Amino acid sequence: MEKYTIGIDFGTESGRVLIVNIDDGSIKGQCVIPYAHGVITEMLPTNDGTRLPRDYALQHPGDYLEVIMKGIPHAIKDANISSSQIIGIGIDFTSSTMVAVDEKGKPLCFHKEFQNNPHAWVKLWKHHGPKKETEEMFKLASSHKESWLKNYGYNISTEWFTPKCYEVFCKDREVYEKASLFLEAGDWIVSQLTGKVVRSNCSLGFKAFWNENSGFPVQFFEKLHPEFKNIVSSKLKGKIGYIGEKAGVLTDEMSSLLGLPKNLPVAVAIIDAHSAVLGVGSSKPHQLTMVMGTSTCHIMLSKKEIHIPGISGVVKNSIIPRLYAYEAGQSAVGDLFGWFAKQVPESLMKEAKEQGISVFDLLEKKASHLEPGQSGLIALDWHNGNRSILSDADLSGMIVGLTLASKPEDIYRAYMEATAFGAKIIISNYEQAGLKINEIFACGGLPQKNDLLMQIYADVLNKEIIVSASDYTPAVGAAILGSVAAGKENGGYDSVEEAVEKMKQPILKTYKPILSHVEKYKKLFQIYQQLHNYFGITKKSWMKDLKSL
Amino acid sequence: MEKYTIGIDFGTESGRVLIVNIDDGSIKGQCVIPYAHGVITEMLPTNDGTRLPRDYALQHPGDYLEVIMKGIPHAIKDANISSSQIIGIGIDFTSSTMVAVDEKGKPLCFHKEFQNNPHAWVKLWKHHGPKKETEEMFKLASSHKESWLKNYGYNISTEWFTPKCYEVFCKDREVYEKASLFLEAGDWIVSQLTGKVVRSNCSLGFKAFWNENSGFPVQFFEKLHPEFKNIVSSKLKGKIGYIGEKAGVLTDEMSSLLGLPKNLPVAVAIIDAHSAVLGVGSSKPHQLTMVMGTSTCHIMLSKKEIHIPGISGVVKNSIIPRLYAYEAGQSAVGDLFGWFAKQVPESLMKEAKEQGISVFDLLEKKASHLEPGQSGLIALDWHNGNRSILSDADLSGMIVGLTLASKPEDIYRAYMEATAFGAKIIISNYEQAGLKINEIFACGGLPQKNDLLMQIYADVLNKEIIVSASDYTPAVGAAILGSVAAGKENGGYDSVEEAVEKMKQPILKTYKPILSHVEKYKKLFQIYQQLHNYFGITKKSWMKDLKSL
Repeated sequence: MEKYTIGIDFGTESGRVLIVNIDDGSIKGQCVIPYAHGVITEMLPTNDGTRLPRDYALQHPGDYLEVIMKGIPHAIKDANISSSQIIGIGIDFTSSTMVAVDEKGKPLCFHKEFQNNPHAWVKLWKHHGPKKETEEMFKLASSHKESWLKNYGYNISTEWFTPKCYEVFCKDREVYEKASLFLEAGDWIVSQLTGKVVRSNCSLGFKAFWNENSGFPVQFFEKLHPEFKNIVSSKLKGKIGYIGEKAGVLTDEMSSLLGLPKNLPVAVAIIDAHSAVLGVGSSKPHQLTMVMGTSTCHIMLSKKEIHIPGISGVVKNSIIPRLYAYEAGQSAVGDLFGWFAKQVPESLMKEAKEQGISVFDLLEKKASHLEPGQSGLIALDWHNGNRSILSDADLSGMIVGLTLASKPEDIYRAYMEATAFGAKIIISNYEQAGLKINEIFACGGLPQKNDLLMQIYADVLNKEIIVSASDYTPAVGAAILGSVAAGKENGGYDSVEEAVEKMKQPILKTYKPILSHVEKYKKLFQIYQQLHNYFGITKKSWMKDLKSL
Repeated sequence: MEKYTIGIDFGTESGRVLIVNIDDGSIKGQCVIPYAHGVITEMLPTNDGTRLPRDYALQHPGDYLEVIMKGIPHAIKDANISSSQIIGIGIDFTSSTMVAVDEKGKPLCFHKEFQNNPHAWVKLWKHHGPKKETEEMFKLASSHKESWLKNYGYNISTEWFTPKCYEVFCKDREVYEKASLFLEAGDWIVSQLTGKVVRSNCSLGFKAFWNENSGFPVQFFEKLHPEFKNIVSSKLKGKIGYIGEKAGVLTDEMSSLLGLPKNLPVAVAIIDAHSAVLGVGSSKPHQLTMVMGTSTCHIMLSKKEIHIPGISGVVKNSIIPRLYAYEAGQSAVGDLFGWFAKQVPESLMKEAKEQGISVFDLLEKKASHLEPGQSGLIALDWHNGNRSILSDADLSGMIVGLTLASKPEDIYRAYMEATAFGAKIIISNYEQAGLKINEIFACGGLPQKNDLLMQIYADVLNKEIIVSASDYTPAVGAAILGSVAAGKENGGYDSVEEAVEKMKQPILKTYKPILSHVEKYKKLFQIYQQLHNYFGITKKSWMKDLKSL
């Protein structure tokens, strides 16, 4: 009898449940459940008429439970296996997504008294409410040269966990006081399955100022506000679990509700992009994985600990035991292409329709007839700010070289090249800090569908790019951790590396640099780099002034 | 019996004949004749299969004759007047447009032996063939500090007359030798009407290195090439006529062919944009006229002679006797909006169709709901290079401040603002050189139809803008010169100023600056100016490198 694990990937708009064969990583069954309430940006589901402030992005925790309750049985049915063949469950979650719960683990928004209070709802990673709070935190941390800041590229993002908690503290003390715990949504799902609170060291390390040597920066929290100090001993308490460990086993109630074996091991949760690294098959030092979707995460494994300005973070044991994982990111990649595709003229839409292909495919087809540099255009890909290495949300996009002859495909190619140049800045930053890169993997939604894009990346980076065949690397990563949670005793694996080796997804294609392109892109990159430094550093006030006029 | 003059405006795509009442400038009749061969850029009308080089823009001289032969009778018919009421003719022509003719005034392209030779055809103002020749001329003139260069803003344009002649000299010596004369197309038309060659001091002064004090720079031509020196005494000979003078009278043959009075006075020809100054009603010092169409000419009248870097030229007596006329220009204005309107998405096209308005009108409508600076965008309007004040055809357009929320109307407004900022650079350049500006007129195709655009100009320039009601100011200017050519003795006028006062076109609207906008645009202009200087001067190699990669 073959053995399977369940991998559940909680994304921004939906949850995906995979049933994965633990011997070869093949996907036996799956189910996608879109969140009924999606991303809540305008009004709360209670529809009390209050408009949410701009930059708010909330979610309904019931939507996550539906992924579990409906998605698991459906996926097992789709796999056409006996549930007794399932030996473990793993969870990955887009992060930092924060849930405030009462002493029973129930989200505060489920309480009638708080149902019309946005701070009682789930704050999604892209909830940008705590802008002021983040600035205050960063100012204080910088001026006091807080030592933990070095683990975060010397920066703090609005999108992280602690700023979200501090936002509740500042903006709604009642909700803050009522909250028994603030939990990463992934850890909340684990608690719902196992009945135990086990916080993942991955999200704590990358999003909550926590470090396995020094814990939380209690004194910093105290400096921020005397009453905020207690958050550590009260609202952030709970066991800390490491990636590769078992968080617990399924509660009897859950077993019977889901039709799953009793005492089924559940893995410690992991951040979605980090889980993709496992699904791709990366488990060794000097490997870098680009998780390319609406935005891109550049995750790097290394034995060394180096503190690199401009990255999003570095955390030991957060993907592969004993290795440091480095994260850096680009804020708009697929989103940038999507924005541009909405701007193309009628004639192009028509042409795509006639050819029976998408506008993206038509743009790529036309752009693929251009040589590097032929369009005369160069762009900065900061249409959603710059995450790495400038860590500046106020930066914006630009394009230079426009003429009356510039065509949509010229501009589209320039944007593709701009994201590749942006990736090169990040990768050069890793390399210059002393991290050697031997292999680059690419996964996520974009690489499989965009041949030209991946060739441009290979040419710009002057490195081979190994593209995963799978669209579901995060969920596979979660399934991998499910098999390690089971352990050898239950037919699973005892090490993450071994599970990765067995369950990693196949390679679709390896892109090799084309020499003549490499040379041209070297010249173009020199201009990109100068524009990057000029608009992003020397004259960064310009873009800020434009936004605030 | 009321008296009329004929004004003929030769544009890029068509010729327009107006019948204008000399007492009040009212337009009694008109006729537009599109050029049958348009702008010839791909293949000669003989269709011998040879592709023209890129950047070539030729015309068929027969098309101009058709404007005369068909257009004049039609316009008279349209006016429903007796031809005996017509007392004069004036001509304006887009410049520099060059015709090479034989000793009888016949264009060389009409000779069978040259019919397949592009250099025997009319070279339109936007023929950019003599790029190399222009560079050679400029290098030599700069290194020898040629004194005439100061009359041209210390620059030479490919679009001028002498470079076009030198191109023939360099590229096809046979055509060059065979040419009895090189003529401005406007002067050629005058010669066809009167049987006499009279060269306009306006086009000579602005486009042919000629000056009323020093004539042609013979020694410079000799330094360029010993055999090119003779061009002055041979191929550039002919009487020089001044604006406001009569070039001659209609030949008997023409009188009878056109059904016009015998010995009808014909005025010295004028450049089209310069003619618009007259039609608008500008005849005094400290007045500036913006002729805004596909591109914009900024023409300024003054008593003072100042040599200003970055302008296109300064010529005395070239529009109003005894005054200096200054010309500067922006290479893409209407063309920039036209290019952008072709890029707008399907949804916008549909919306415009549903509302029964043009895409331009819809974009303007949407853009008019934005406050200055609200879009967070700023652009450089160099999509067709920069004519003034940087005089650099290799510069290109750019836009900064793009986000995933940027909409087409945001970008459209940014381009409108960019052309206004470009105009401000030109106007500030005039003012800083010591030319005081009391009044600004606007005419051409754009101002009448674009309310928001003109308000933006008033706000950015912080000056009132007086918009002419007429779309036909150049042809009216030509008719004004026709009435002066007739003179008082024939029922016309003895001075250009008097004729302007009587025949100028009415005002549509005067735009006044809105104070709150002025303040915001001051801040935006500071950024524009810095981008202008950085990309156009300090780092101009970037745009050049992008073009040549």
